[in-house]
Amino acid sequence: MKRILVIHGPNLNLLGERELDIYGKVTIKEINEAIKKEAKTSKVEVTIHQSNHEGEIVDLIGKARKKYDGILINPAAYTHTSVAIRDAILASSLPTVEVHLSNIYKRESFRQQSLTAPACLGQVSGFGMESYILGFQGLITSLKDNKMS
Amino acid sequence: MKRILVIHGPNLNLLGERELDIYGKVTIKEINEAIKKEAKTSKVEVTIHQSNHEGEIVDLIGKARKKYDGILINPAAYTHTSVAIRDAILASSLPTVEVHLSNIYKRESFRQQSLTAPACLGQVSGFGMESYILGFQGLITSLKDNKMS
Amino acid sequence: MKRILVIHGPNLNLLGERELDIYGKVTIKEINEAIKKEAKTSKVEVTIHQSNHEGEIVDLIGKARKKYDGILINPAAYTHTSVAIRDAILASSLPTVEVHLSNIYKRESFRQQSLTAPACLGQVSGFGMESYILGFQGLITSLKDNKMS
Amino acid sequence: MKRILVIHGPNLNLLGERELDIYGKVTIKEINEAIKKEAKTSKVEVTIHQSNHEGEIVDLIGKARKKYDGILINPAAYTHTSVAIRDAILASSLPTVEVHLSNIYKRESFRQQSLTAPACLGQVSGFGMESYILGFQGLITSLKDNKMS
Amino acid sequence: MKRILVIHGPNLNLLGERELDIYGKVTIKEINEAIKKEAKTSKVEVTIHQSNHEGEIVDLIGKARKKYDGILINPAAYTHTSVAIRDAILASSLPTVEVHLSNIYKRESFRQQSLTAPACLGQVSGFGMESYILGFQGLITSLKDNKMS
Amino acid sequence: MKRILVIHGPNLNLLGERELDIYGKVTIKEINEAIKKEAKTSKVEVTIHQSNHEGEIVDLIGKARKKYDGILINPAAYTHTSVAIRDAILASSLPTVEVHLSNIYKRESFRQQSLTAPACLGQVSGFGMESYILGFQGLITSLKDNKMS
Amino acid sequence: MKRILVIHGPNLNLLGERELDIYGKVTIKEINEAIKKEAKTSKVEVTIHQSNHEGEIVDLIGKARKKYDGILINPAAYTHTSVAIRDAILASSLPTVEVHLSNIYKRESFRQQSLTAPACLGQVSGFGMESYILGFQGLITSLKDNKMS
Amino acid sequence: MKRILVIHGPNLNLLGERELDIYGKVTIKEINEAIKKEAKTSKVEVTIHQSNHEGEIVDLIGKARKKYDGILINPAAYTHTSVAIRDAILASSLPTVEVHLSNIYKRESFRQQSLTAPACLGQVSGFGMESYILGFQGLITSLKDNKMS
Amino acid sequence: MKRILVIHGPNLNLLGERELDIYGKVTIKEINEAIKKEAKTSKVEVTIHQSNHEGEIVDLIGKARKKYDGILINPAAYTHTSVAIRDAILASSLPTVEVHLSNIYKRESFRQQSLTAPACLGQVSGFGMESYILGFQGLITSLKDNKMS
Amino acid sequence: MKRILVIHGPNLNLLGERELDIYGKVTIKEINEAIKKEAKTSKVEVTIHQSNHEGEIVDLIGKARKKYDGILINPAAYTHTSVAIRDAILASSLPTVEVHLSNIYKRESFRQQSLTAPACLGQVSGFGMESYILGFQGLITSLKDNKMS
Amino acid sequence: MKRILVIHGPNLNLLGERELDIYGKVTIKEINEAIKKEAKTSKVEVTIHQSNHEGEIVDLIGKARKKYDGILINPAAYTHTSVAIRDAILASSLPTVEVHLSNIYKRESFRQQSLTAPACLGQVSGFGMESYILGFQGLITSLKDNKMS
Amino acid sequence: MKRILVIHGPNLNLLGERELDIYGKVTIKEINEAIKKEAKTSKVEVTIHQSNHEGEIVDLIGKARKKYDGILINPAAYTHTSVAIRDAILASSLPTVEVHLSNIYKRESFRQQSLTAPACLGQVSGFGMESYILGFQGLITSLKDNKMS
Repeated sequence: MKRILVIHGPNLNLLGERELDIYGKVTIKEINEAIKKEAKTSKVEVTIHQSNHEGEIVDLIGKARKKYDGILINPAAYTHTSVAIRDAILASSLPTVEVHLSNIYKRESFRQQSLTAPACLGQVSGFGMESYILGFQGLITSLKDNKMS
Repeated sequence: MKRILVIHGPNLNLLGERELDIYGKVTIKEINEAIKKEAKTSKVEVTIHQSNHEGEIVDLIGKARKKYDGILINPAAYTHTSVAIRDAILASSLPTVEVHLSNIYKRESFRQQSLTAPACLGQVSGFGMESYILGFQGLITSLKDNKMS
Repeated sequence: MKRILVIHGPNLNLLGERELDIYGKVTIKEINEAIKKEAKTSKVEVTIHQSNHEGEIVDLIGKARKKYDGILINPAAYTHTSVAIRDAILASSLPTVEVHLSNIYKRESFRQQSLTAPACLGQVSGFGMESYILGFQGLITSLKDNKMS
Repeated sequence: MKRILVIHGPNLNLLGERELDIYGKVTIKEINEAIKKEAKTSKVEVTIHQSNHEGEIVDLIGKARKKYDGILINPAAYTHTSVAIRDAILASSLPTVEVHLSNIYKRESFRQQSLTAPACLGQVSGFGMESYILGFQGLITSLKDNKMS
Repeated sequence: MKRILVIHGPNLNLLGERELDIYGKVTIKEINEAIKKEAKTSKVEVTIHQSNHEGEIVDLIGKARKKYDGILINPAAYTHTSVAIRDAILASSLPTVEVHLSNIYKRESFRQQSLTAPACLGQVSGFGMESYILGFQGLITSLKDNKMS
Repeated sequence: MKRILVIHGPNLNLLGERELDIYGKVTIKEINEAIKKEAKTSKVEVTIHQSNHEGEIVDLIGKARKKYDGILINPAAYTHTSVAIRDAILASSLPTVEVHLSNIYKRESFRQQSLTAPACLGQVSGFGMESYILGFQGLITSLKDNKMS
Repeated sequence: MKRILVIHGPNLNLLGERELDIYGKVTIKEINEAIKKEAKTSKVEVTIHQSNHEGEIVDLIGKARKKYDGILINPAAYTHTSVAIRDAILASSLPTVEVHLSNIYKRESFRQQSLTAPACLGQVSGFGMESYILGFQGLITSLKDNKMS
Repeated sequence: MKRILVIHGPNLNLLGERELDIYGKVTIKEINEAIKKEAKTSKVEVTIHQSNHEGEIVDLIGKARKKYDGILINPAAYTHTSVAIRDAILASSLPTVEVHLSNIYKRESFRQQSLTAPACLGQVSGFGMESYILGFQGLITSLKDNKMS
Repeated sequence: MKRILVIHGPNLNLLGERELDIYGKVTIKEINEAIKKEAKTSKVEVTIHQSNHEGEIVDLIGKARKKYDGILINPAAYTHTSVAIRDAILASSLPTVEVHLSNIYKRESFRQQSLTAPACLGQVSGFGMESYILGFQGLITSLKDNKMS
Repeated sequence: MKRILVIHGPNLNLLGERELDIYGKVTIKEINEAIKKEAKTSKVEVTIHQSNHEGEIVDLIGKARKKYDGILINPAAYTHTSVAIRDAILASSLPTVEVHLSNIYKRESFRQQSLTAPACLGQVSGFGMESYILGFQGLITSLKDNKMS
Repeated sequence: MKRILVIHGPNLNLLGERELDIYGKVTIKEINEAIKKEAKTSKVEVTIHQSNHEGEIVDLIGKARKKYDGILINPAAYTHTSVAIRDAILASSLPTVEVHLSNIYKRESFRQQSLTAPACLGQVSGFGMESYILGFQGLITSLKDNKMS
Repeated sequence: MKRILVIHGPNLNLLGERELDIYGKVTIKEINEAIKKEAKTSKVEVTIHQSNHEGEIVDLIGKARKKYDGILINPAAYTHTSVAIRDAILASSLPTVEVHLSNIYKRESFRQQSLTAPACLGQVSGFGMESYILGFQGLITSLKDNKMS
């Protein structure tokens, strides 16, 4: 049975309360329930973390290599500033999928640069909560199938 | 019953024959079959076009507004050079999803600029053929559901 | 009797239906009627084309040299991306006027670069449908008068 | 009866004497007469100023709001360097049209950036003296008509 | 009674010992006492934190929304590198004032870019310890008064 | 008794009439009264000027050295374009404080570059009329106290 | 017997009539005759196309893989704007030589960027019609000989 | 007898009092005396102006054409920001020499861009007061001699 | 007896397991043993830390001033993104040496910018584990000897 | 009988020994023999030099004007850094052809800038040794024929 | 008696034969005679060298410190590319004046960057041969007089 | 017995006489003695050259391949401008170590770009004379040991 590590980056704990025009009304609890339901359907194990600390996220990924088969991550603000998370993903060698709630191409220009995406298998952005589900499915498919990338 | 227009951009007709390290072994025929199967499951109608001509793609999108409920597009090379396709998507007002076979963040720097993505609902890249399926599902979900934006 | 070629670039066929806040409510049909009326008043012959295809616009300009005395063009999206249309205008040696419905200086930064304008006699932007009429008059005056440029 | 303020920016007092290859043989006196004739035809009142002083132009525009219905301005060199004139136009809330004798896209790259144009209704460039007449007509039409901008 | 959260960013714990030419001789203890005295005068409650950890600052701001009416922050080095703190401020919706001891415009060019300032109400820089007091007063005034911003 | 020169840059004479969303409803008269009241409280003499002319502002600062102990300036549009005012401040050797009504970091990118700030003691921006009062207090404190800068 | 596909890009049909100072007096007919004569001498088959349409050029290259052994192309204006033609050349895997009549390094800076050249074997520019003949010979030699590239 | 117009730009009236490390101890009075002495020796008439106003300098140059044979100018801060003075020099057609007291290459990067120099015959910088004398001699020589430029 | 603080930045705990082509086969344990052996030979005390947290590294350096005579640091990913660590080194006033296992000049362009190096005495990169030993020796020599820097 | 000067730039003496994947196995001796053979066929005299010294190459070109009718040069590394060689070519007024063994568009971005090419008649790159032969032929043709450039 | 070293950079040996529109008809011999005559008048010793070799110029300056009191240099093409000459001038500590025949501000943009000027006392450009004489006089004056720089 | 070639770049012959604040008091003679002593200890043969000529350095490296086992180079000014030396190092295939006396990250921005470092094994900078010794040791270790990259 495959094990997936899901990481929510900074400020995602506040989801659903504020900036509804950008991130929608969904809460992190609802996203986590949807991921767990999807995991059940896909018959994979899932562990979910949220952290506002770049270092903690690096720690999590650093320990992931022996415990998980893949990573689903929304690095949020760290997408655009963290070489450390990029290096952690590369060092882990685990297939990793990057997801974003909003379409980063519609926002400030600095949000259109992703330091972490080049270390990932793929990226899904703009579908709100559904970005997580689509990214999760893409990750599962990639673990089963070698037709990709 | 929802109707979806699928557009494959330039050179995608050659898929599966060459540059296998970047785009994989899958052919456009196999992608189309997978999309049709997915459409059947999702109970939506689907029409698929491939064109190497920017103008033809602009024509297709221009006529789509009254005939379709959403667009799934892989603009390929035109992603990075076509303001005309961007404007066509904006003019159509249809929810549009952009997909890419490869992870554009791992490639030449000019491929990391998307002129079309800011006109779209969301973007999926890096999952090979699966990018189409995930993008298709994301589009369908967005047509049913208003939790997204 | 002077002959003028009028070219509408990509997506202008959709005018008046969408993005009314940027382009106004006027339709391409109304613009064409206004141009024809103006042509009648000015006693010049006028031929009008709309195309979404960069290549077709290059074809039209390439053949214009022997059949027309001047060109009025709204290159729309191709303003910012087409070296081919720029070269066609230069190769035609015909006095050419570039017009834009919206004030391109109020929009995205990439719309503030015009590849075609350096090949033209002059440019009119921001007056909606009236941009065409002013550009048309400017072109007619330039054909009669050598005090300009 | 509508009242229009016309402003000629720096060095335009020297027109017709020098740099004939760029600006043509026309003098500021001839331009002013043409504008007055056009104003008569259009049945609008017109007041014309020329100044080499950025501050004076800001003063003129600052006082214009209660005395005029629109502004026609050739900011000349200040087009490319004056945030103060841009802010004055914005503060005046008057519909303003920017005109240039020469096609600024054919000249030094710094002349292709207009700081004032984003504060204006529209811009006309490249038609020599005729740029003023076309800009004047565009301004008049915009005062009568709401189909624009 | 209004409650204000004051946050000192990285390395501010070392104030007054080193780099006296840039930051002055004042210590963090003296700044805190001055803030508390000012708070007493203004009759507001104040809580003060110092942290070298970006994640901790994000945590503090994330929890501030229900407990405080405004934030006074010197993000120090994180001013120039932290999208996460910018997003935390935006997510908190609290009026936030950014202060700097030194005049950041007199220093290295990378210190002249502030990622956090666009998320704030206002910014005060260059007055040494007094920057905190001025920023504090500005924040208090903004909480009482709607004439601003 | 300390003497302070206050300078309002271009277009600030129009305050309170227009662009209320950016600059607020306050008028220059109200700001001046608030400054005078503050001056009375602080027991300093104050002289206030408004000018739309860069040269006049340079003149004022050039003559200030022997007549004043400090300068409070809102250079407005000239903040971003005037090396002459920057040089005048440097040549005056007077402690100078730069203030802005709006938060310049929330506006067009060219407004985020200040040519004058590196010549000043400090900067206050974003507090509306209160920016003047805070800047005034900061200037007074700096004249009394050497703990700063 | 080797087969070579020769492609003339946009506006090359107008050669010899205009802009003689840049492109010389030679016509496309004369170039084609020279190529055919050279082909005869070299004992290779040659097929020649001219198109103003980016999409048609992509189509031609896409179909070339099974019918030709090499491509000689003057992409003209598309050299600087077409990722689609670059991708078509890469997808074709055919040895391709890029030629230019004029020395692109002597012209506008945007003409010094070639999007297509990195996909080609080599490039010849600046020799007028002779560029085609030299490029043709270089292509033939490369088909016979493995000492190159 | 040749007539030369000498123009001192903004803040040069303050020379010799402040920023002695950059501009030296010399006063504008001493510079003017040295120029007059040099003029006497060279048997040319000289008129000297100082202005802090860009517009006044444009006025002076605009009127110079019929009254002078050449211009010696230290545009000071306007060197780097004034297109209007550049255009005035070009419009005057008078041989103009630009001088600077300090070596502009040793200072802030924005001082290394000269908008006015391309409109001048030559430039002398870095010799303190002597820059004026050398520039004056260079101008005189150029008026007598055609071996130059 | 001199005391040296050694800091390993993010992801260095994973050394020797992955990305062997870039970082080599050596583990952090082996590096630490080599450093300790070198310390013994040089008769200096050494304390070694590894942290993935930027804030922890700032804490460590902040406390180092009174406990150590010098710092040897491999900031890893934080080399390119951390102004906070740069400021901590500057605030500590301790001679600090920056080391890198790989030659950062052979890698992605963002790795060629070091925010921390300008705060250090010197930098050693590209020698694998030996970079630490060389940097350590350089630091020791600098503590004994004033011929350097 | 025409005389051609052939210049090999820096490091070309090492050809055929190293970096075979970029430059191929051919040696400078083989290239020189091929050039001599080609010269014989074309009935032109040829003199060949190799130098690693920028100054020597400038010397050679400086003396070439009276002794040769044209220059064939592979400036190698100096292509990208030598304004002196560019100026020497311009000063010589001799038709000059630039050649490169490798396709410079496929390599590091700094190799895609040629400082020398704008001073040349044309450029040939990417054909290995054949680049010299093609460039030589192009030069000969240009000496005989005026249809070019 | 003061001794001055005069250095002519690359290609200046060819002066007067070619590119007369840029550099004038004067030859290096004529310049040298003028310098010698000026030296006689000024009662200083002068030694003149011309070299096309960057290394030779560095050698000359390196040996100059003990033998000369000042340097007059026209670094020509090396102005824009030689850090080595810049460093040699700095290492020599001799007052050095940079001269250019043409006005470098009127030419290609890369000629407007001077790597050597920041190491010099001053710069004179645009006066043809007279640039040398003016620079020579400026250097002599600076050796006698401390009022400068 | 291993043989090492040591190369000192331009102006290093002047070391110890000037710019002591940047390069220290050490002379090239002292550095050479230290290197020879180190070589004796390490039992390797060493040959030392200093040259101000880029071409000579390229010559030296070009001949090094058969005579030496490694290179220690301080390219000085050529670090930032010489593609030729970079190519020579690459062509030599010898392990090469780049050293700098000063910390290049603390100096002008153009000194922070190294064209030669990507061709080297590693780089040591900022330790004064000790940089050479550390670099020498690093090179020796790399020749003995394969643990390094």
